[in-house]
Amino acid sequence: MHLTQFSDYSLRLVLYLACHPEKVVSADEISRAFGISRHHLVKVVQTLTDLGVVEAQRGRGGGMRLAKRPSEINVGWLIRRTEPHFDLVECFDPEANTCSIAPACGLKGALHRALNAFLGVLDEYSLDQLLTQRSDLVTLLDDSLRRGAKSNHAGGG
Amino acid sequence: MHLTQFSDYSLRLVLYLACHPEKVVSADEISRAFGISRHHLVKVVQTLTDLGVVEAQRGRGGGMRLAKRPSEINVGWLIRRTEPHFDLVECFDPEANTCSIAPACGLKGALHRALNAFLGVLDEYSLDQLLTQRSDLVTLLDDSLRRGAKSNHAGGG
Repeated sequence: MHLTQFSDYSLRLVLYLACHPEKVVSADEISRAFGISRHHLVKVVQTLTDLGVVEAQRGRGGGMRLAKRPSEINVGWLIRRTEPHFDLVECFDPEANTCSIAPACGLKGALHRALNAFLGVLDEYSLDQLLTQRSDLVTLLDDSLRRGAKSNHAGGG
Repeated sequence: MHLTQFSDYSLRLVLYLACHPEKVVSADEISRAFGISRHHLVKVVQTLTDLGVVEAQRGRGGGMRLAKRPSEINVGWLIRRTEPHFDLVECFDPEANTCSIAPACGLKGALHRALNAFLGVLDEYSLDQLLTQRSDLVTLLDDSLRRGAKSNHAGGG
């Protein structure tokens, strides 16, 4: 059981932006800081912009910043929107279901309760609560960007 | 977010066996009742046998039955063993992790709490508690077997 890479990258992106409220950040910078695909990040930026979580700034020196305070971005709310679905087993999606016992099976109810408990915990967190070690996060991200720049320089010979 | 097909099929298999405590059941019968791959089920049977949940009866008229009472088979315990992992995001697996902020990020703790809540709910259920509508389940399974036999017959023309 895991979240999609899309949710993972969405969370990294908002964490990065929350660590750098003072500046406008490019997708390229975030891609380098985490060593992840810029191509995938661009789709994440689009979705988070549509959700009103991120706002883009166009033009030279453009990029993005959070459209809300970290304390206003709920983690459960966000993950509900970045995951494509929470169909734990086939019968969660009546249209796709082929399981013959779905109408009388107690498993679905148990799994629904478990899923609600999962999301309920995430609903308790806003983005700022993931940043209690913000200065350490900033240091780790800066180090990662520096290492990336060095290895690019070495690679360029 | 979803469970693997392996967990889904494992749960269907123990539900089927719990619905039919009076008989020894073949993988072929379960495969036909759910319309799922016999090949995949055979791997499930092997794992559940290794876990001591199912016991095989060899020879003519062979098959399997539950090795424990349904009230002794805990759903959370079972899913913990049928899922290959619960690495919700990359940093859950320190060996595979590439995320630069893992040492200071608060997300991991939030997701661990959510996962524990998820599994904690499933720990409240034993297999018999999923069978409160057992007679309806048996009817649905019998109907499904009959429909399968009919369509095979029609197919065999």
